[in-house]
Amino acid sequence: MDVYLLLIGDEILLGQVVDTNSAWLGQQLALHGYRVVGKMAVPDERAAILAALDWAAQRAQLVITTGGLGPTKDDITRGALAQYFGSELVFHQETYDRIRAYFARIGKPVPESARQQATLPQKAVLLTNKVGSAPGMWFERAGKVFVSLPGVPFEMQYLMSEEVLPRLRKHFPGKPLAHRTLRTAGEGESAIAKRLEAFEEALPAHLRLAYLPSLGQVRLRLSGTWPHAEVPPDAEERLRAEVDAYADQLRALLPDLVFGVEEDTLEQVVGRLLQERGLLFGSAESCTGGYVAHLMTSVPGSSEYFAGSVVAYSNALKTQLLGVRPETLERCGAVSEETVREMVAGALQTLGVQVALAVSGIAGPSGGTPEKPVGTVWLAVGDRARIVAQKHVFARDRVKNIQLAATFGLNMVRKFLLNAL
Amino acid sequence: MDVYLLLIGDEILLGQVVDTNSAWLGQQLALHGYRVVGKMAVPDERAAILAALDWAAQRAQLVITTGGLGPTKDDITRGALAQYFGSELVFHQETYDRIRAYFARIGKPVPESARQQATLPQKAVLLTNKVGSAPGMWFERAGKVFVSLPGVPFEMQYLMSEEVLPRLRKHFPGKPLAHRTLRTAGEGESAIAKRLEAFEEALPAHLRLAYLPSLGQVRLRLSGTWPHAEVPPDAEERLRAEVDAYADQLRALLPDLVFGVEEDTLEQVVGRLLQERGLLFGSAESCTGGYVAHLMTSVPGSSEYFAGSVVAYSNALKTQLLGVRPETLERCGAVSEETVREMVAGALQTLGVQVALAVSGIAGPSGGTPEKPVGTVWLAVGDRARIVAQKHVFARDRVKNIQLAATFGLNMVRKFLLNAL
Repeated sequence: MDVYLLLIGDEILLGQVVDTNSAWLGQQLALHGYRVVGKMAVPDERAAILAALDWAAQRAQLVITTGGLGPTKDDITRGALAQYFGSELVFHQETYDRIRAYFARIGKPVPESARQQATLPQKAVLLTNKVGSAPGMWFERAGKVFVSLPGVPFEMQYLMSEEVLPRLRKHFPGKPLAHRTLRTAGEGESAIAKRLEAFEEALPAHLRLAYLPSLGQVRLRLSGTWPHAEVPPDAEERLRAEVDAYADQLRALLPDLVFGVEEDTLEQVVGRLLQERGLLFGSAESCTGGYVAHLMTSVPGSSEYFAGSVVAYSNALKTQLLGVRPETLERCGAVSEETVREMVAGALQTLGVQVALAVSGIAGPSGGTPEKPVGTVWLAVGDRARIVAQKHVFARDRVKNIQLAATFGLNMVRKFLLNAL
Repeated sequence: MDVYLLLIGDEILLGQVVDTNSAWLGQQLALHGYRVVGKMAVPDERAAILAALDWAAQRAQLVITTGGLGPTKDDITRGALAQYFGSELVFHQETYDRIRAYFARIGKPVPESARQQATLPQKAVLLTNKVGSAPGMWFERAGKVFVSLPGVPFEMQYLMSEEVLPRLRKHFPGKPLAHRTLRTAGEGESAIAKRLEAFEEALPAHLRLAYLPSLGQVRLRLSGTWPHAEVPPDAEERLRAEVDAYADQLRALLPDLVFGVEEDTLEQVVGRLLQERGLLFGSAESCTGGYVAHLMTSVPGSSEYFAGSVVAYSNALKTQLLGVRPETLERCGAVSEETVREMVAGALQTLGVQVALAVSGIAGPSGGTPEKPVGTVWLAVGDRARIVAQKHVFARDRVKNIQLAATFGLNMVRKFLLNAL
């Protein structure tokens, strides 16, 4: 089923906000087997919205609009939709009561404009917004569906997940689908593709493997569609089992790279491993400048397993707080295997933790030498029994070198905890 | 002058990438007085591209396409443009040589596909891409201009800044324009607007003030257009002087909030102040978990003034590494004025720095109490002579509470260094 997205609002065209809604919608719709065939952003102008609705309806069975439902006078989606569907705007007491209850719940006075937000096209099926004031709307005409959602990302996502997608599955019943995402760290897309050549060749035609790369990580998404004409009641279950079996194969082929599934992050996975083992963790950071600690502490509840970090940007602090010997710094340099090993030993001591990660490198743009170019990073992880060190040369810009060093470092911690390093 | 943006590529519709190009283009074009009236994303399909070009050309004098210029078979913008302009695709030896030289420069072999990238519509004026392989293209028809740019953000930005905008100023000469952006931290949009009521009322009609808010910060952009029919040769210079004079007024009205201009960041400004004064800085972080250190060290050259940080997530480390007294933690709690003051004193000592920032708070989602709800953050900044502490209640989600605490903390450091705290 083809979908067209309409983003309504001057702020998108002026570049005052980056549109993240349509990427989220594109991904969610793809997971349900629906295909976004186009998207358009239009200003807060009735004529532009009406022309865009016409264009979109010619190209898709489902049109989703976001934005323009707020309380200010710029927000004219309601009026434009009423005109498009030849429907009157009427005041909905029930919606108004719900908006009043919403403001009471968040402890704010009900704004004057709430009456306007509760004045909606009569033909709309209203989608209750439990996380904000503007309701979503659902219209049907000539076999096509039009959905109008607020532009605030978490309100849009709530309505899409809770109200729209369940209705769409009923309204446009497709063939059963199943998905499984494995998350990997430590290798690029092409290196992984090489290792999966035989796997991909043996993959049946109704299963597909997609590579979704980001900095230092690749998500592998396995998608399946039901291959037969008739659809038995247990089709979705059987398909899911099949996709899961192939995902298990995939995991077995990349045991060193797969760290999690679906929305797992490396910092969550490392946190879980630490918590299971009852271990306290800390970091000793030079070039990452606290970024490892920031990632670890961005996870709710991380105080249970993360004690702290020493960001030793200067060599003096490497010696004073982490006990790195001046001779080591003198002889091998701050970016060296010897230094990161001593940083781990020092962090275990200073932070009173059982496992520590140390990072020292040249983030750039300056500081590189022919032997140690910008992007050279030494990483070490260890406990009181064993320390493992690795060198990487990322050779990117400063921000990317920092992010890559932290990602590779956390992946080392993960492997260390699994005795796979 | 009206502009329409066409984003070409399946990856945008599938949601595999978030489109940041069009926000950048919208901002840059607005700065030059051009207005984006719409944008559309289309798949890598010739018919869809041709229909979109028609639609866009009906609505704007300038159409900018991004994407679809790469070397793979999906990248079909070149062929679609050739058809649209009734122009043959021809091989450009000069472009091919340039692409070969580009690959030689980055030390990679010339791919087979380079010939394809050098095969371009005959009618195109080529825009030399010095930072990538695909050239940009400029077409004119019936008084309208069509520009085709690669989708890779830094290549697109390079071509737009260096090749397209200078040509546009000649091709669509508008009235002189001038802009000045002041960056503020520490107050929201509405509080600032209240303080600027009289200023805004007195602003002449040809000057406009825009508020561009982000987390904990607001950019104030003052824009002016030349107000008279005749345009003397020194018009732009005079307009710029006028805008600058109003920007100076603005700065004088908000001395406590304005921290920089244009693309300045708080961490750069703090770094500059430290460097000018020859001071070493460090942080003692609890709830920000290293985020302050990360921001400071994201600036190139920060090792000159940033020594390091103690991320003391556990109370044990607050005592052991920062010398916070157990009685203080017991009596006042980790999130208290007393604790952050002792953390500053400890950081000055432990890190051997002249100025330190301390942060302790409840980032959430758990850990809040009626007296100290989630989002409560104590900040302190000081040197050996003086320590200043402040409390804030941000009451957002975990990630935003961390970011706000770091932003407000850096702003306190800035004011402390300026003796304005």
